[in-house]
Amino acid sequence: MEKTIVFALNSSRELAEQICDILGIELGKCEVKHFADGEILVELGESVRGKDVYFIQSTNKPVNDNLMELLIGIDACKRASAATINAIIPYFGYARQDRKAKPRQPISSKLVASLLERAGADRVITMDLHATQIQGYFDIPADDITTLPLIGEYVKSIETGNDVVVVSPDHGGTVRARRLAEMLNAPLAIIDKRRPKPNVAEAMNLIGDVNGKTAIIIDDMVDTAGTLTSGINMLKEKGAKKVYAACSHAILSGPAVERLKNANLEEFICTNTIDQTKNHDEYPQMKVISVAPLLAATINAIEHNSSLSSALQNAIIED
Amino acid sequence: MEKTIVFALNSSRELAEQICDILGIELGKCEVKHFADGEILVELGESVRGKDVYFIQSTNKPVNDNLMELLIGIDACKRASAATINAIIPYFGYARQDRKAKPRQPISSKLVASLLERAGADRVITMDLHATQIQGYFDIPADDITTLPLIGEYVKSIETGNDVVVVSPDHGGTVRARRLAEMLNAPLAIIDKRRPKPNVAEAMNLIGDVNGKTAIIIDDMVDTAGTLTSGINMLKEKGAKKVYAACSHAILSGPAVERLKNANLEEFICTNTIDQTKNHDEYPQMKVISVAPLLAATINAIEHNSSLSSALQNAIIED
Amino acid sequence: MEKTIVFALNSSRELAEQICDILGIELGKCEVKHFADGEILVELGESVRGKDVYFIQSTNKPVNDNLMELLIGIDACKRASAATINAIIPYFGYARQDRKAKPRQPISSKLVASLLERAGADRVITMDLHATQIQGYFDIPADDITTLPLIGEYVKSIETGNDVVVVSPDHGGTVRARRLAEMLNAPLAIIDKRRPKPNVAEAMNLIGDVNGKTAIIIDDMVDTAGTLTSGINMLKEKGAKKVYAACSHAILSGPAVERLKNANLEEFICTNTIDQTKNHDEYPQMKVISVAPLLAATINAIEHNSSLSSALQNAIIED
Amino acid sequence: MEKTIVFALNSSRELAEQICDILGIELGKCEVKHFADGEILVELGESVRGKDVYFIQSTNKPVNDNLMELLIGIDACKRASAATINAIIPYFGYARQDRKAKPRQPISSKLVASLLERAGADRVITMDLHATQIQGYFDIPADDITTLPLIGEYVKSIETGNDVVVVSPDHGGTVRARRLAEMLNAPLAIIDKRRPKPNVAEAMNLIGDVNGKTAIIIDDMVDTAGTLTSGINMLKEKGAKKVYAACSHAILSGPAVERLKNANLEEFICTNTIDQTKNHDEYPQMKVISVAPLLAATINAIEHNSSLSSALQNAIIED
Amino acid sequence: MEKTIVFALNSSRELAEQICDILGIELGKCEVKHFADGEILVELGESVRGKDVYFIQSTNKPVNDNLMELLIGIDACKRASAATINAIIPYFGYARQDRKAKPRQPISSKLVASLLERAGADRVITMDLHATQIQGYFDIPADDITTLPLIGEYVKSIETGNDVVVVSPDHGGTVRARRLAEMLNAPLAIIDKRRPKPNVAEAMNLIGDVNGKTAIIIDDMVDTAGTLTSGINMLKEKGAKKVYAACSHAILSGPAVERLKNANLEEFICTNTIDQTKNHDEYPQMKVISVAPLLAATINAIEHNSSLSSALQNAIIED
Amino acid sequence: MEKTIVFALNSSRELAEQICDILGIELGKCEVKHFADGEILVELGESVRGKDVYFIQSTNKPVNDNLMELLIGIDACKRASAATINAIIPYFGYARQDRKAKPRQPISSKLVASLLERAGADRVITMDLHATQIQGYFDIPADDITTLPLIGEYVKSIETGNDVVVVSPDHGGTVRARRLAEMLNAPLAIIDKRRPKPNVAEAMNLIGDVNGKTAIIIDDMVDTAGTLTSGINMLKEKGAKKVYAACSHAILSGPAVERLKNANLEEFICTNTIDQTKNHDEYPQMKVISVAPLLAATINAIEHNSSLSSALQNAIIED
Repeated sequence: MEKTIVFALNSSRELAEQICDILGIELGKCEVKHFADGEILVELGESVRGKDVYFIQSTNKPVNDNLMELLIGIDACKRASAATINAIIPYFGYARQDRKAKPRQPISSKLVASLLERAGADRVITMDLHATQIQGYFDIPADDITTLPLIGEYVKSIETGNDVVVVSPDHGGTVRARRLAEMLNAPLAIIDKRRPKPNVAEAMNLIGDVNGKTAIIIDDMVDTAGTLTSGINMLKEKGAKKVYAACSHAILSGPAVERLKNANLEEFICTNTIDQTKNHDEYPQMKVISVAPLLAATINAIEHNSSLSSALQNAIIED
Repeated sequence: MEKTIVFALNSSRELAEQICDILGIELGKCEVKHFADGEILVELGESVRGKDVYFIQSTNKPVNDNLMELLIGIDACKRASAATINAIIPYFGYARQDRKAKPRQPISSKLVASLLERAGADRVITMDLHATQIQGYFDIPADDITTLPLIGEYVKSIETGNDVVVVSPDHGGTVRARRLAEMLNAPLAIIDKRRPKPNVAEAMNLIGDVNGKTAIIIDDMVDTAGTLTSGINMLKEKGAKKVYAACSHAILSGPAVERLKNANLEEFICTNTIDQTKNHDEYPQMKVISVAPLLAATINAIEHNSSLSSALQNAIIED
Repeated sequence: MEKTIVFALNSSRELAEQICDILGIELGKCEVKHFADGEILVELGESVRGKDVYFIQSTNKPVNDNLMELLIGIDACKRASAATINAIIPYFGYARQDRKAKPRQPISSKLVASLLERAGADRVITMDLHATQIQGYFDIPADDITTLPLIGEYVKSIETGNDVVVVSPDHGGTVRARRLAEMLNAPLAIIDKRRPKPNVAEAMNLIGDVNGKTAIIIDDMVDTAGTLTSGINMLKEKGAKKVYAACSHAILSGPAVERLKNANLEEFICTNTIDQTKNHDEYPQMKVISVAPLLAATINAIEHNSSLSSALQNAIIED
Repeated sequence: MEKTIVFALNSSRELAEQICDILGIELGKCEVKHFADGEILVELGESVRGKDVYFIQSTNKPVNDNLMELLIGIDACKRASAATINAIIPYFGYARQDRKAKPRQPISSKLVASLLERAGADRVITMDLHATQIQGYFDIPADDITTLPLIGEYVKSIETGNDVVVVSPDHGGTVRARRLAEMLNAPLAIIDKRRPKPNVAEAMNLIGDVNGKTAIIIDDMVDTAGTLTSGINMLKEKGAKKVYAACSHAILSGPAVERLKNANLEEFICTNTIDQTKNHDEYPQMKVISVAPLLAATINAIEHNSSLSSALQNAIIED
Repeated sequence: MEKTIVFALNSSRELAEQICDILGIELGKCEVKHFADGEILVELGESVRGKDVYFIQSTNKPVNDNLMELLIGIDACKRASAATINAIIPYFGYARQDRKAKPRQPISSKLVASLLERAGADRVITMDLHATQIQGYFDIPADDITTLPLIGEYVKSIETGNDVVVVSPDHGGTVRARRLAEMLNAPLAIIDKRRPKPNVAEAMNLIGDVNGKTAIIIDDMVDTAGTLTSGINMLKEKGAKKVYAACSHAILSGPAVERLKNANLEEFICTNTIDQTKNHDEYPQMKVISVAPLLAATINAIEHNSSLSSALQNAIIED
Repeated sequence: MEKTIVFALNSSRELAEQICDILGIELGKCEVKHFADGEILVELGESVRGKDVYFIQSTNKPVNDNLMELLIGIDACKRASAATINAIIPYFGYARQDRKAKPRQPISSKLVASLLERAGADRVITMDLHATQIQGYFDIPADDITTLPLIGEYVKSIETGNDVVVVSPDHGGTVRARRLAEMLNAPLAIIDKRRPKPNVAEAMNLIGDVNGKTAIIIDDMVDTAGTLTSGINMLKEKGAKKVYAACSHAILSGPAVERLKNANLEEFICTNTIDQTKNHDEYPQMKVISVAPLLAATINAIEHNSSLSSALQNAIIED
């Protein structure tokens, strides 16, 4: 893999190091400077001429700085004659702004896709995109990799023999939950937030049965954890013996960590698509599964022109 | 509106005439030739120099011919110095191919969007897009207009005083159904197709109550009508007094019309985003609501640079 | 050639198989689905990551479906990280719409070229383009390969020792006919359709001498075969001993096959740029020369970065 | 027409002044500097903000300097916020490089089209393009205007009552000659340069009859006039009473003027698509018809958004 | 000016209000939301269909957030059918990254220009760009307006009758200083930082004479004010009676305000291209000249398609 | 280096031959035809399919012809399937038109960059660009190589042991002069052309000391040599013992050679970025240093994907 260089930018440095460890290569030399006036400079510390460059950079908070680091890094590589520039964005920010929810709104996730292409990215790799349609916002190859098998494996390893049920926290997450349920060979339940009639307060309802079972709530992202904690409470009321919460992207903004610590939860399971070093210090009970093996396998498949879906098995089942 | 020209292509000729009637203008002169070898020629019968051109053309079956008519028409207008070229595509074909459902699939609805832009379209207007994210596939302005208020108005006019419940035929349609329920000030029910456990046959379940009520099943499109007829039967079993089925886009391919005629249905309600002349001849009980007033109001707002959301009221609530 | 994948789409499946036989590779796995509503889905059955993909697809009738298959196939390959995507279009439909013949006409062959580039094609290979200027409609490399040497070889093999004359059916085809004449070391004649004075009926005139000779009428395409059969009759009247008709692209729409069967013709010679399986069943006397060797040599030269003009000898003399 | 500015660059200054006279506007202020090192600077002497700018510039010899003046002028207008930039190029240089005549040749006329678009042109207007397919090299509107009616009117005015025949100097010019013949209600003849057999010298042959008649040889361009003078001699040998030669674009390079002066010619008729001031001084018998009325009418139609084909009548019959 | 809408984003709200006051229009309704996870949403509170939109937004610190607000705002307007989108960026961040100062560096100011165009900006207006070459980074019209006349007017008003000398703080600023000197009819001095020999410490030298005079140091931007305060001290040592410091862009990061307060300075003069509300509170002696009149005149000229250089007089002298 | 082809166009044929000699390859076969009507045709005499093509072509006088040769050559290579097309432009014409010096001016060096990209260039290599910002005018990799080390080496070899001072002929050239001074371990002087007061004649002033020393005036380009000869005279007046003048680009237009021959100059040192064959015949005392080794090393580094800055050492220090 002498044509391959992996660069870490600021949001995903640890993840990048794990990936390089697996690949058996050194992390590429690349310095990111933040000046007093807020401007960023990305300086490549080694030649990229004719190389396949991979930037590892999630665009979580500070999302605009992280995005700009990536765009500037891409520009530097393009001007320095990199063979290909691959943006690995484990957490793709602005993904929820994927449509005009009201007239005259922007579609910011399309905008971000366009900016990445304009800067010079040749390929984008994301994980558990909020909406699979976002892949279509790119004209360059865009591969979306799911972390569900990692979560499924972990759950299987800790709850062997128990009676497990997978719970989707809302209607939108049903497909994701069903897929995890299939991996675990478990039934499905759905938390149904609806108004029985317009102008009547939204009520939480449970479709399916959790009584006496181990419930696994699965979502793509957890932000302030408000909805999640209400869901946990309700599952407990409905008789769930144990409750786990799992997600790909643990944004955990505002009171989220505090809420999780206080929740009636066996374990909070997430991945390191967003760096969890600080959160884990504060909340050591959380389980952080590394996506580094998936991303290392992805880079490996790309560099050897072998099939990504073979390399990742069920981790590339797209929808 | 002397700068405005409305051209009908083959799939939506009658709708285009209705729009022109409302706008009080003549339909533009434009001949579409289909040659023996299958090639198409669009000849503009009048000058479009400096004009705002509106093509009315749904891309239903024969979808590729209809799409090509539109692309060629756009090319002709571009080369003939039209001021702006607006593609009004009431039914946007290929919309269900909006993501990679499996590895190595195309994203054909993005492709179609790109082709329309490449040919020279300046704006696209669609109705009840299958996924709202598709708006982001365009870099040009893309307005999506919903027909729900038209359907709501009609239902209110025929079922005054009765106890109505709105039914979504699956989880994906909940948002649409909820919006209609709000218009009708009615409760919501959802048909829940799920497997209780993996490898167990999918079962139809009803969330909510239809007993003794008038049920309105609402979907964005009805293709072969298989799922719809099973749903109708189930609602009847659950005690629904009357059942209506409504949709925006009545594709009605294969056995669909026959199934609808035999279904236990008060009325099948749809719009003319897809021309229903032939279907209506065969099945006169179907109710076809014209979208011409919405599209005429849209053209009017664009031509007068006034707000589209004001002009259409709730018909432009996007999500 | 392990980087090479050849995919057949619907119009040219047999030709693609012949090419693969010559190249000694398996035809790539690729399924083309046509749904009840007319939409097409192209699913690649194997990984194309880092591969040089060649689609073999003529855009003859149904031209719009065939074109759309190609565009969707290209989109799928682009998103699946193919190294290069080569569209081999032996018969390039819409080629006759290459200029504005009247004000406000489209230039559809330019439009098609733009759509292919927009979808993601990296190279286009055509055969006997109707107008050589069409190569300039592409910004990507566009190689046009002539089948004249194949036709010339065949004629030489059957008319050894005879007195042959090559006939162009109109003024536009003179360059093509002259080239064949040079290959056969034969004189040239031209059928001259002109009005001696305006408003006088067009008359067929013959420039050159066919008396007692074997005449070979050569054209790039034969559509309804009306002009061709008049030409044959006239040559006979002028004393031609035998008449052959040859063309690259046998469109043969409408009454064409019937006319050819009834024509006073030694043999109708064409190629399989357009699939002739059905026509040949109906009219077994026609001679179909396969272009597979030319296209296999082309793919071979591209894959080995060797000169195409050397590989094809006089089959790439462009003008 | 207060939004209209017409700028003259160096090749077509006199023509531009004639156009402005007809339009009743002042020529726009614009200085073209040629520096000692060969670089060009175009300085606009007045504001073009929000204006429709028309550059009048043929790209005859020195073709690259003239082209560069045009590109730089377009760049200046684009940066100075012109509303639209229209390049009127009465003689479009490089038009004969419109295809790969041999492998590995450029297609320079497509290149020039792309450069004009890249610089920022919004519309191109040409006259008697060498090949009509070149219109398709542009993605912006490209109108081609023919000077044939002007030439036809002039011939009618001088040869009233005489027996006129229109002569095409080669097969490629037949369409053009036929169109003039129709205007003059005259028969057609074609000079047929062919080899009876390969490797036999090319012979000039005449199809049609000129004996005792006034012959009008019509071509799109006359460069060195070698072929033309041979043609004139042959027509005389065939008994033509008088011979006129007419063309749109009088390039007249090398010995052309001398040859024309010595030719057995009633009159050499051309237009001022290429400036003829110097040639006319040297050869005052030549007849130069101004295209200014056609171009003024074109600008007028564009500025008033009225139909160009109506404005120019038969001068826009494209083929 | 009913087609005109001016929107303020977060960095330049007060300036935008001043501009609207001068233009006599209401500030456009536009809400900028910053979410807990760092993402931004720009919601337009009124229709922009067919309107000329002007965003007022400097990209000073937080530069990436401010840039992203602008890009998202542009995206929203593009999708909402604005007629034109004008980005007024009084302080253009990243301007100092305008070249590769070392191998493998990005050119971030070009990147930013490309991002603005990609998002959909139709025109950019900047003030006192760090390098005038940056205008060339845009393909859309880019007007750069200088604040020097404002500064010159102010200096003239306070130092009437005194003996003024304009001082450039380094070689790079000579052109700017010379221009101010001409406005004030004053001589020029240059602070010359150079090493007499390599490896000898850089020394400050003064070219020109300030003894007994009022010195005006002029620069385009003042960041940490370190160089500036050394310069002030040196001028005092060289006998300057009074010293003023003036600049367009008062970035004033880190210890800058403190340094200025302690400097031996009559007055620090700057503009509000960067908002100075907070700095002025802390350091009320600073003189902040508003650029609102210049920008209002600019908008006015654009909206009326009148010459910007006439409207701004010497404020648009570019170099 | 079997993938490498170096083509010489007309302006830099000898330099290209030197480069090929160093690289040990044959110059590529490529014929440039200039026709009587001023048009150019570039015909590639060998296959470039899959090759890395390098054009060597400075755009000095005749700048527009030389530029057009390059653009047409690029077009030919693009259409002939070259793998990459590298434009080596040792002297990049139009570089001084890099900003709007007055309102409504073009930015011609940006235009030229855009034209090169549009034609199909994949990389550009320049030498001693007039302004380093011009690199940002390209979206493709653009490497700028400085000839200063070559000039420094030469000066060191001839003036060993003497007391050398490097002189910048104006403020703009200080950075360049300082860099040469560092190479020579010599002090710096600056010729300071300024008006002490507005409306007073510009005076030449010298900052620094040349008395009794060997002065090396260094500039990027010498055009008419007027300023240079005044500078030489002044240095002599200030006591310089010997004066050398050195530059990268010896344009030498108009009276330049004559002036240099008459100047009080030890030697005029330049490079062959612009071909000096003719000038050297006329003025054999001039020293022409070949840049061929630098460019050969550049091609070598690119072809081997090794670092250009390592290969060229200090010749790639950009700023």
